[in-house]
Amino acid sequence: MTRKPLILVTNDDGINAPGIRTLIEVMNELGDVVVVAPDSPQSGMGHAITLDSTLFVERVIVDNVKQLEYSCSGTPADCVKLGIREVLDRTPDLCVSGINHGSNSSINVIYSGTMSAAIEAGIEGIPAIGFSLLDYKWNADFSAAKHFVKSISEQVLKNGLPNGILLNVNIPNLPEKDIKGIKICRQAKANWVEEFDKRKSPQGKDYYWLTGKFVILDHGEDTDEWALAHNYVSVVPVQFDLTAHHFIQNLNTWGFNG
Amino acid sequence: MTRKPLILVTNDDGINAPGIRTLIEVMNELGDVVVVAPDSPQSGMGHAITLDSTLFVERVIVDNVKQLEYSCSGTPADCVKLGIREVLDRTPDLCVSGINHGSNSSINVIYSGTMSAAIEAGIEGIPAIGFSLLDYKWNADFSAAKHFVKSISEQVLKNGLPNGILLNVNIPNLPEKDIKGIKICRQAKANWVEEFDKRKSPQGKDYYWLTGKFVILDHGEDTDEWALAHNYVSVVPVQFDLTAHHFIQNLNTWGFNG
Repeated sequence: MTRKPLILVTNDDGINAPGIRTLIEVMNELGDVVVVAPDSPQSGMGHAITLDSTLFVERVIVDNVKQLEYSCSGTPADCVKLGIREVLDRTPDLCVSGINHGSNSSINVIYSGTMSAAIEAGIEGIPAIGFSLLDYKWNADFSAAKHFVKSISEQVLKNGLPNGILLNVNIPNLPEKDIKGIKICRQAKANWVEEFDKRKSPQGKDYYWLTGKFVILDHGEDTDEWALAHNYVSVVPVQFDLTAHHFIQNLNTWGFNG
Repeated sequence: MTRKPLILVTNDDGINAPGIRTLIEVMNELGDVVVVAPDSPQSGMGHAITLDSTLFVERVIVDNVKQLEYSCSGTPADCVKLGIREVLDRTPDLCVSGINHGSNSSINVIYSGTMSAAIEAGIEGIPAIGFSLLDYKWNADFSAAKHFVKSISEQVLKNGLPNGILLNVNIPNLPEKDIKGIKICRQAKANWVEEFDKRKSPQGKDYYWLTGKFVILDHGEDTDEWALAHNYVSVVPVQFDLTAHHFIQNLNTWGFNG
């Protein structure tokens, strides 16, 4: 007897975002779907968790399709924790997060709520994928993304992922016929050069808006930024062991204890 | 002519926390200190940044010592971005975050606001260290930490750190005489097994508090958890390239494009 895979779906743009609606549609073709997603947008939340306030989780019906859905007052990482411990009655076979409205390539993985949900599932030992489309608009066109979301998810359901590894998938904002395929990549070196927009409140107090320019510092053809600029879907295997293992030996020569 | 190092200090427990006051005291012995720290506690914020609201930064005087201090309405990562772009007139020689009230060893690095500030400085190419004491209490005793904070910071000022690497330092909650020394470590495999405390509001609505049990899955003698359990200060070199480089070759055999 084979049973259908159980798939936990979440995101950071909120349960009503078009990106997660598309993701649910595709996952319904692959298994039994349970959605636990934030009740409001949580972009830029990084790996935040809610320690000092209460969490509400509520059964909701967003459309008339067969998935079970829960709306949660917390962050994406909270949604995964609550989904696994309180909502689901067995460990899911896959956790997918997204489809994010906007890129999570290169250094953006660090700031991303979408990826924090996938990382949280990875920490729990669940195969996990974060999906993002390179179009931040609410009415972005997710139709070309569907094909790639489905095939990558099928591969992960089939092959599994080693403990401690999950996938960060970014999809170019192009019609399907113009996407050249899928490339396995490393995270490009890049950063945001902030330009704070300084203003004065009606009460005369200075305040700032965080804005910035994205700067790619790395033009390697094995990077996610290269793949996306050349019309490929980028797939980066991500780990949450942040140890810079290659620097341990050097640090040991610093003579801290003598 | 040599000038004194410029040191940016921040944390996630808020500008008035005893941990950052101790850190400032030690940094005043090493250079010119500028503090940009959250105006209220930000624990568990992970690498959150403020994208959808305004940021306030205000000159404050917390004690009568010589450092310049600014209180900020944002997250620890916001504080570092604002410090570098708006407050300081040159790039700091060192950024230190903490001393956190509570451990940021092993997987806690992922959830930690203290470490997100250090990582943000690392992304900006600034040598950075996050310090944490294994005592979450507000009135924790930071006196033994001072010696190690000073010697590790001096080493980083002297040797620098390679681009893309920062340090995660955890200090046992012991008198200085009982601390055996400093150990360079890797991040232990560990996770939190959540136990959601489910309650009912006076209005009859279910809600949860996030609580949990910390489980160490890895007893390697080269880990931070081992070092701390054996009365050593742990120093883990941390990187923000999350690519699981060793899994790229395997993923390429999955046949995504054919």
